[in-house]
Amino acid sequence: MSLLLKNVCLDGKSVEIYLADGRIAKIAPELPGVAADEVYDGRGMAVVPGLYNGHSHAAMTLFRGYADDMELYQWLTTRIWPLEAKLDEDLVYHGARLACLEMIKSGTVFFNDMYWHVKGTARAAGELGLRAALNAVMIDLNDPKRFRKQVEDNTRLYAESRTFDKRLQFVLGPHAIYTVSEKGLAWVRDFAAEHDLLIHMHLSETEKEVVDCINEHGLRPVAYLERIGLLSERLVAVHAAWLDEEEIAILEKYRVKVVHNPVSNMKLAVGRSFPYCHFVDHGVLAGLGTDGCASNNNLDMFETMKFSALLQKFTTNDPTVQPAAEAWRMATVNGARIFGLDGGEIACGKLADLLLIDTSRPELAPGHSLVSDLVYSASGAVVDTTIVAGRILMRHRRVEGEEEIVAGARAAARRLLSL
Amino acid sequence: MSLLLKNVCLDGKSVEIYLADGRIAKIAPELPGVAADEVYDGRGMAVVPGLYNGHSHAAMTLFRGYADDMELYQWLTTRIWPLEAKLDEDLVYHGARLACLEMIKSGTVFFNDMYWHVKGTARAAGELGLRAALNAVMIDLNDPKRFRKQVEDNTRLYAESRTFDKRLQFVLGPHAIYTVSEKGLAWVRDFAAEHDLLIHMHLSETEKEVVDCINEHGLRPVAYLERIGLLSERLVAVHAAWLDEEEIAILEKYRVKVVHNPVSNMKLAVGRSFPYCHFVDHGVLAGLGTDGCASNNNLDMFETMKFSALLQKFTTNDPTVQPAAEAWRMATVNGARIFGLDGGEIACGKLADLLLIDTSRPELAPGHSLVSDLVYSASGAVVDTTIVAGRILMRHRRVEGEEEIVAGARAAARRLLSL
Repeated sequence: MSLLLKNVCLDGKSVEIYLADGRIAKIAPELPGVAADEVYDGRGMAVVPGLYNGHSHAAMTLFRGYADDMELYQWLTTRIWPLEAKLDEDLVYHGARLACLEMIKSGTVFFNDMYWHVKGTARAAGELGLRAALNAVMIDLNDPKRFRKQVEDNTRLYAESRTFDKRLQFVLGPHAIYTVSEKGLAWVRDFAAEHDLLIHMHLSETEKEVVDCINEHGLRPVAYLERIGLLSERLVAVHAAWLDEEEIAILEKYRVKVVHNPVSNMKLAVGRSFPYCHFVDHGVLAGLGTDGCASNNNLDMFETMKFSALLQKFTTNDPTVQPAAEAWRMATVNGARIFGLDGGEIACGKLADLLLIDTSRPELAPGHSLVSDLVYSASGAVVDTTIVAGRILMRHRRVEGEEEIVAGARAAARRLLSL
Repeated sequence: MSLLLKNVCLDGKSVEIYLADGRIAKIAPELPGVAADEVYDGRGMAVVPGLYNGHSHAAMTLFRGYADDMELYQWLTTRIWPLEAKLDEDLVYHGARLACLEMIKSGTVFFNDMYWHVKGTARAAGELGLRAALNAVMIDLNDPKRFRKQVEDNTRLYAESRTFDKRLQFVLGPHAIYTVSEKGLAWVRDFAAEHDLLIHMHLSETEKEVVDCINEHGLRPVAYLERIGLLSERLVAVHAAWLDEEEIAILEKYRVKVVHNPVSNMKLAVGRSFPYCHFVDHGVLAGLGTDGCASNNNLDMFETMKFSALLQKFTTNDPTVQPAAEAWRMATVNGARIFGLDGGEIACGKLADLLLIDTSRPELAPGHSLVSDLVYSASGAVVDTTIVAGRILMRHRRVEGEEEIVAGARAAARRLLSL
């Protein structure tokens, strides 16, 4: 499949872009000799890379607005966990379809997802054409029976993942150090190395996690993971808020990657912001994520970029920290690199994951700086066209079957509440 | 002019709403005998009050993305003030038109604006049909000549404001205690009382302002204003971040109103968040504003509501603070009451300032709670129809002449940079 984009604006100049075999094949002011399966007119549009969502729980769209403004433990035990216990693969499929639709409509081309009933999410992402890293929620609570079940489930899922759409990669998802045993983490370490898999894990989201780790293991979380041998360039540590500088130096040493979720961190009041400047000083690769809809409550990475840049300025008391271009970089090329994807940039040879932006919108005028406008003024609604692996997933803000997807999610939410 | 809204959803029930003479005249499941100048089908839409933007500098849309991520003083002196010195009424008109368009498209029905060349803003708001409180930027820098000029200008503007559109109210706009002399503030106090005008003023945005006030006057800013006699229910104090509890008790005593600008406060790194819980404890009426596009960089009050609720949770380390319904209230009925407007609620007799929300959008599904979805998930793009004073300003996301307005603002920004 090949696609020729005409009249699009790249860095202020009108160009044509030829996409073939899922990659950006040619870029030039004009490409007269190129014959493509489809020619798409992008007049009035700026072309930019798509956004990479580094942390989500896609099917939690079903819980959007179901419970907010609550104390964390009460929220989990009385509202979220009781509903999650009732989920099945079909409900997850409908929730994840809604999530994929929302992401496509707000310019996200990839998401890294930790959730139950992974195959439901895989089916949704596969059908809708998004790129994703998918993993089960691995929790054993120090219980040997649960540990064995997790090993079985993940081993089977890994085998099954070979039948998933080729844009989907299987990842291991140990939930956190306080929900997975040392034995469980050691298994993850070995299985990931054996099968060359990434590991996606919550790390130091709250102060309690750090204090409990010190009490239980006599070590801060990063040192604890170092002792187990889980630190490596396979590890994608999400949240990473309550880290001290020594821990960040250890993450640098092992080339661990981190993902910041500013909206969720603020909504759940985790008490501290992501130590962005320290990560930059240490050269740790940092991306951005939305987290799930129960704690955000949307999946709009444009909003997440703005929250990220502004939260850094506010908490460091320095308006120069994390300028727009850095937030943009976190959501694009950094996000891609964290997951081993050769995307997030508009250049020949890169993955053809890109967006056409409708620059005629009032919130993008007068247009002094596109990157500033995208980070500080835009919402996902500025995206006119979303392209993943060279395939158009949204044309002029229309995604095929969107009414049916929204209706399906509404019905799934009603069914869930009635169970 | 009268308008009959059919098939709209109010608090989960389908109703018809009859708007006449700028007010909500009738609400009922059906209104069979009513004959209106226009019947508007709101099938699939929820009706909610419009949003009241408590603090803006509308024409600064021309500076959107022109200078970001800079230290405050450098930003003002090297980027903003040099351009502002070149503005004229026509440039302000074009900037304010873009602002009005952006506000209408994101569900704002009213804005309270402090800026140069007020008549440009009045013309824009009048033509586009928004409600507004408008004021000049009153700055005398302790200079008697400037003081006399400010008095002349404001006296003349007040007289001219009687020719403004009737939805526009003239307000006095002393910039701040550090830019207006004591004599200037005393004049504002007397002129406002004589002509029954509101006063719109920046207050305690930064720590520097407080420290300088103590050094110069031996008083914190609120005590200084109390001594001058500027505190009354006429005063709308914006930002109000660096206040102690004693100052808040004084504001309560004089029934001063306050407006929080969370996005601007975070972007400019003012170092402290609005003391929301104290204002609530003292019963001080608090609204929300976007501030200008140079420090936000958009005018989307949906985004501002989310930033407000999340910033409170994050800074108080308590996820229960400022639940969605309270942020919603700040942006609607509180905003209206601050400016003496009988709006912000859908009820008979209230101002016909309302929005139809497109609930079919993915980010509003599955729809457990409309107010949560509007505050935590929506952007202004969920607004399908904006109605001010019973007149439809946006129909199914189309505003009359929008392309010309955007083009006009682009041309104005180019002209400004070339001056």
